[in-house]
Amino acid sequence: MSVPRPLRVAVCGGGVPHAEQDHLAEQVGRLIGRSKAVLLCGGLFGTMEAAARGAARVGGLTVGILPGVSPDDANDYIALPIATGLGEARNAVLVRSADTVIAIGGEWGTLSEVALARKIGRPVVLLRPSFPITVPIPTAETAEEAVQMALAAAQGS
Amino acid sequence: MSVPRPLRVAVCGGGVPHAEQDHLAEQVGRLIGRSKAVLLCGGLFGTMEAAARGAARVGGLTVGILPGVSPDDANDYIALPIATGLGEARNAVLVRSADTVIAIGGEWGTLSEVALARKIGRPVVLLRPSFPITVPIPTAETAEEAVQMALAAAQGS
Amino acid sequence: MSVPRPLRVAVCGGGVPHAEQDHLAEQVGRLIGRSKAVLLCGGLFGTMEAAARGAARVGGLTVGILPGVSPDDANDYIALPIATGLGEARNAVLVRSADTVIAIGGEWGTLSEVALARKIGRPVVLLRPSFPITVPIPTAETAEEAVQMALAAAQGS
Amino acid sequence: MSVPRPLRVAVCGGGVPHAEQDHLAEQVGRLIGRSKAVLLCGGLFGTMEAAARGAARVGGLTVGILPGVSPDDANDYIALPIATGLGEARNAVLVRSADTVIAIGGEWGTLSEVALARKIGRPVVLLRPSFPITVPIPTAETAEEAVQMALAAAQGS
Repeated sequence: MSVPRPLRVAVCGGGVPHAEQDHLAEQVGRLIGRSKAVLLCGGLFGTMEAAARGAARVGGLTVGILPGVSPDDANDYIALPIATGLGEARNAVLVRSADTVIAIGGEWGTLSEVALARKIGRPVVLLRPSFPITVPIPTAETAEEAVQMALAAAQGS
Repeated sequence: MSVPRPLRVAVCGGGVPHAEQDHLAEQVGRLIGRSKAVLLCGGLFGTMEAAARGAARVGGLTVGILPGVSPDDANDYIALPIATGLGEARNAVLVRSADTVIAIGGEWGTLSEVALARKIGRPVVLLRPSFPITVPIPTAETAEEAVQMALAAAQGS
Repeated sequence: MSVPRPLRVAVCGGGVPHAEQDHLAEQVGRLIGRSKAVLLCGGLFGTMEAAARGAARVGGLTVGILPGVSPDDANDYIALPIATGLGEARNAVLVRSADTVIAIGGEWGTLSEVALARKIGRPVVLLRPSFPITVPIPTAETAEEAVQMALAAAQGS
Repeated sequence: MSVPRPLRVAVCGGGVPHAEQDHLAEQVGRLIGRSKAVLLCGGLFGTMEAAARGAARVGGLTVGILPGVSPDDANDYIALPIATGLGEARNAVLVRSADTVIAIGGEWGTLSEVALARKIGRPVVLLRPSFPITVPIPTAETAEEAVQMALAAAQGS
């Protein structure tokens, strides 16, 4: 006997509310939850919270890889907070632990996660990226497309 | 709405098989699983695997906070591997993320987890400690006693 | 009494030899060494080694913030190896410890350092960037210009 | 050509002032500085500051492996602050980076460093330990003896 080990999908994005990105993040989270994958995120607010809310509302497991020392820092939709106490170095733990990464919008913190993920060979899909891209990382236009691409990349890896 | 956030209990111990300690660890894991708490451990073998097996067999959620870079390093009873890539520094992440810590047997690695947990104020229960150092920490004789003490300490904290 | 605390300049770049970038990195290292600043880098090869060589040859102190567990992983020009054992998460330690960051050429790993540095507010200068992404950051054309810009940014911060 | 790489000696101990231990720590630091080894410590106060002061006053290089995000957290005798931002997980970085470890007095934090050092095979000498020991880690009675034992262990390793 061994236990089933569901796919783990990291959703990365900014920590402050942003209406369009949060709407996308909640859809992405819902689709991840429905796929029975585990949603990993940074555990805080903005995109992270919206994605966790989407997954939690359909019964998905939500994990917050927090930068700080207190599990209580997590947003209300995180069932399992991992308080790394590592600060921004937790970005490396987040992408390492994921089979596949979806980055929504995003600024420097999200870009560091995308770069770390590519450095260590995790597949990344961008959804409406808000940092200026010049070369192809696969980019999605809709939440459905992003989740399909991310799940396909994880299964191919 | 917010999601339920179950209690998180870390089980620490050695990474090589040890008949008596593994038997205790499996009992501890089973009791944690039955209590609906999440079992956190280092994700590898020996005591970590036995505890995860105990929890997994009664339907509990098992999380492995791994030292290495690959989620595939986890033992067969870990449903959710967190590949920290931090080496022994992951011991700090493990105890930070737990509400309460049970250390079974153990040598230097386990002792470092006990010391880190006490440093940051997490409650610790020892079960049949085998450290090279005497530590002034509540000590249990049976798996039942260890889990009761650990859960009581978490609720009091 | 307190001890003088020299400025710390991180030099980031790729880990494989690259003639043009290594030549620039050695010049950058030499200028950092001559300025009496401490050179921080990732401690390994390619750009990191060239920068350390430049600084060491003019008597500068060279520090390698290594990803691995062994201080012996450091290149021959590192006087002080810091073996973090953190893998790529050491990139966060490197930029946190620096007053100012110069990134030469670079791919995903270097981009993660640039993004982490900007996320936490450390000044960054790019020198002949080779990233797959266009980043809105001050960019230098020569080693002299890069070091001048980096030192000025550190003193202004 | 390669650069000389001096021995690195970590001094661990409590972070609050303690007259007897601070006096010992300053002597230990002075002897490390005179031996031309680099002194590594946690960078903060109490034993860490006393050891750094001892080394700095005889011209030794002092490195502080800090838990926090700001290099300015370091005590006045740290020439080279490394701001890990890792919290207590920095204890693992400190002992990994050292060739040999001296622990003076100490409580839970210091014990975690001793345990991590032994786990990864770094030699440790205790000087007037203040946690209860039952089995042999080599223990010194004077600063001179501690530094001699630590340097001998490093050279033998």
